[in-house]
Amino acid sequence: GLNEFCTALHAARTAEFMEGLSSAEAWQVLLATDATTRVDVFTYLPEQQQVDILESADPQEASDLIANMPHDDRVDLLKEVEDVSVDSILPLLPTEERRDIQRLSQHPEGTAGAVMTSDMARLPETLTVREALEEVARQSADHETIYYIYIVDEENHLRGLVSARQLVTNLGRPNKLISDLMERDLLTVTDTDDQETVASKVAEYDFLAIPVVDSEQHLVGIITHDDVIDVLREEAEEDAYLAGAVEPLDETYMETPWYTLAWKRGVWLTVLFVAAMLTAAALKGYEDTLAKVTWLVLFIPLVISSGGNSGTQSTTLVIRGLTNKDLVPGDWLKVVRREIITGLCLGSFLAMLGFFVVRIVQSELTTQQALVVPITLLSVVICGTIVGSLLPLLFRRLGLDEALMSSPFLTGIIDIAGIVIYMSVAIFMLEELGGGVGAG
Amino acid sequence: GLNEFCTALHAARTAEFMEGLSSAEAWQVLLATDATTRVDVFTYLPEQQQVDILESADPQEASDLIANMPHDDRVDLLKEVEDVSVDSILPLLPTEERRDIQRLSQHPEGTAGAVMTSDMARLPETLTVREALEEVARQSADHETIYYIYIVDEENHLRGLVSARQLVTNLGRPNKLISDLMERDLLTVTDTDDQETVASKVAEYDFLAIPVVDSEQHLVGIITHDDVIDVLREEAEEDAYLAGAVEPLDETYMETPWYTLAWKRGVWLTVLFVAAMLTAAALKGYEDTLAKVTWLVLFIPLVISSGGNSGTQSTTLVIRGLTNKDLVPGDWLKVVRREIITGLCLGSFLAMLGFFVVRIVQSELTTQQALVVPITLLSVVICGTIVGSLLPLLFRRLGLDEALMSSPFLTGIIDIAGIVIYMSVAIFMLEELGGGVGAG
Ligand SMILES: [Mg+2]
Ligand SMILES: [Mg+2]
Ligand SMILES: [Mg+2]
Ligand SMILES: [Mg+2]
Ligand SMILES: [Mg+2]
Ligand SMILES: [Mg+2]
Ligand SMILES: [Mg+2]
Ligand SMILES: [Mg+2]
Ligand SMILES: [Mg+2]
Ligand SMILES: [Mg+2]
Ligand SMILES: [Mg+2]
Ligand SMILES: [Mg+2]
Ligand SMILES: [Mg+2]
Repeated sequence: GLNEFCTALHAARTAEFMEGLSSAEAWQVLLATDATTRVDVFTYLPEQQQVDILESADPQEASDLIANMPHDDRVDLLKEVEDVSVDSILPLLPTEERRDIQRLSQHPEGTAGAVMTSDMARLPETLTVREALEEVARQSADHETIYYIYIVDEENHLRGLVSARQLVTNLGRPNKLISDLMERDLLTVTDTDDQETVASKVAEYDFLAIPVVDSEQHLVGIITHDDVIDVLREEAEEDAYLAGAVEPLDETYMETPWYTLAWKRGVWLTVLFVAAMLTAAALKGYEDTLAKVTWLVLFIPLVISSGGNSGTQSTTLVIRGLTNKDLVPGDWLKVVRREIITGLCLGSFLAMLGFFVVRIVQSELTTQQALVVPITLLSVVICGTIVGSLLPLLFRRLGLDEALMSSPFLTGIIDIAGIVIYMSVAIFMLEELGGGVGAG
Repeated sequence: GLNEFCTALHAARTAEFMEGLSSAEAWQVLLATDATTRVDVFTYLPEQQQVDILESADPQEASDLIANMPHDDRVDLLKEVEDVSVDSILPLLPTEERRDIQRLSQHPEGTAGAVMTSDMARLPETLTVREALEEVARQSADHETIYYIYIVDEENHLRGLVSARQLVTNLGRPNKLISDLMERDLLTVTDTDDQETVASKVAEYDFLAIPVVDSEQHLVGIITHDDVIDVLREEAEEDAYLAGAVEPLDETYMETPWYTLAWKRGVWLTVLFVAAMLTAAALKGYEDTLAKVTWLVLFIPLVISSGGNSGTQSTTLVIRGLTNKDLVPGDWLKVVRREIITGLCLGSFLAMLGFFVVRIVQSELTTQQALVVPITLLSVVICGTIVGSLLPLLFRRLGLDEALMSSPFLTGIIDIAGIVIYMSVAIFMLEELGGGVGAG
């Protein structure tokens, strides 16, 4: 029957098969199963369905479910449920569970505290291997993982870690004390630490979970590998949106209403538009120049896009370096040196290409005239690489998120520089604009 | 002494402390420790140091180390070691280890086979809980993880999975058969599967590891949570580089030689330059128009950047949707509908701003004349959102990587469209260009 359907498969797959059901139907199916399976499958349902179920289910049944849910997930979920339902569910929970929910929900989003779960296995250090295994087996159902067992003193200070692997390997020595097995030099994080820092630590050390302590070294939770993956994805996602000058979405593209989309794009588009307005002002300043030498206009987009593209590349490289902690703002001099060399190299190549383009598009020009574009290209590319690499370092130094240095933003800045450089080179080089002294 | 230094800390931290040492010194320290600690610390050393050590160490000691290393990591490492050293190390390995290395190294990069490790715990289904625990304890040192134990038949076909948690929980029923405990409905991947697909599966189901089978359902390896994190980071990294029009780096920014950097940027910069050349050709076609109405030039960068920016936003949103599997190419009609609405909304707003900009920069224009820019802005933004959203869908449909649709690439395409639209609107609207019929 329904129970067999639910227990034969992995909970996530059962949840997947239930996708077509309404929330009420899904809940009926879940009520037909045992409490453990019910929770397992429930946590894999789409979030909106979970919310709907909690808002319409019988409060007693809902609170039984909440009592058995992973501690981190239920806090996240209850934040989405309407207050009336929460107020009817919470009082029916055992006191200890209700307190735990209140404690966990106090941590601000983006901190280790908001990602951690409080249902970790904890043991005193006085136990033997045999006793520890029996105790862990007894508590197993209550814990998210039993593979890392944290050793605490009477006041819940973190003292060490014993892995299930160590316990199993020492099955033959059942009377050995776990205090003799435990690792004492633990890497911990504090509940107020940034979630991104925590995730990189777990990724670097290949941990299954990392313990979270409060300011007094009390063990308050653990962050498990699966939630680390979620954090890493969320942060990468955020950076990808920002790189495209879109304020990060909370839901999928299709689920986001069009007015939210328009708002999240419009904010940045307007900022970028204001930057672009300055290009009109800059060109206005060179109106006479352009009127005298009309062919200069043809290469304006080419010149400014070359600067923007090389600048975008530099920004991308430096942002990756900062995000991966390969670079710090103090490295700016080394970075600029590298970027100047790369810029010279790339700029010279584009200048060469540019020379041929000018020769083809505007074949009647003298060499002196045709050289304006390649010289501009070289200067603009070098300018692009320097500005593009320094701006994210500056953002970081100022305490801003360097991910805000999106390609369109950078391009907006370099567009103006490109126009000024182009016009200046033209005025300097062209006899008809009073320049070109060297051409005699 | 040295041994205590190495065993008191987590292996990764010991490795960190040894960062200042030369490869020869690091190896001396490691030789002073027991074989297990030696391997643990070694695997956390920077890759270049690992390579240096293998290339200079005594072949017998090197092969002892290799024999104890995680199976996946040693294959990756040996690929970096010079052939002479590999040829002196491999023959000293036990036959079984050598064969394992050969088998694992045959999988092409980017597949599940290239990420998996072959040192997983495997048991026949005939064992009891007690026997299984004893067997796992005995083999423990040889396995990357003992928390998932795979049940295979005599021909190594995957039959099921028992977790260490289940075994520990059933300690009180030592004679229970593991075939009664094991999960039979397993989610597996094939060794030829794409690593990105595999990583998303593990992330979705919160697994500690996922089993890899060959085409005949033989269990050939597992992919563990830590390597899934590495795959996810690598893929996100790759996409971030491509979004900035840089060919992904294999090393960090500072470690990459300048000529490699120049090459990885130059390739894309050249492609983008060729696209930008077309803007010069397009403008050349409108030379007369621009000569007659010179003020049009002032707003060229503003117009094309607005199109590029809104297009970049659409591309970013659609690429995220494709990567996260929220969108498929078949959704194109729904996407275009959304983008037209958003484009209308954003374009109208920018058009309004643009009208004021024109009024300020070029105050002597009639309303009819000043309207050219806002009408262009609206059209260009809508064009940007449509093209920007459709191109990644088209790339995906053609079997190309949509991540190649970088912001500079998209901008290059829309620049040309922007110029054509701007000039067409001007010719249509302005009496001095033969248009403006409606103005009477
Ligand atoms: Mg949370
Ligand atoms: Mg790792
Ligand atoms: Mg969790
Ligand atoms: Mg989770
Ligand atoms: Mg963040
Ligand atoms: Mg961030
Ligand atoms: Mg590999
Ligand atoms: Mg081995
Ligand atoms: Mg997950
Ligand atoms: Mg591994
Ligand atoms: Mg690894
Ligand atoms: Mg890939
Ligand atoms: Mg990819």
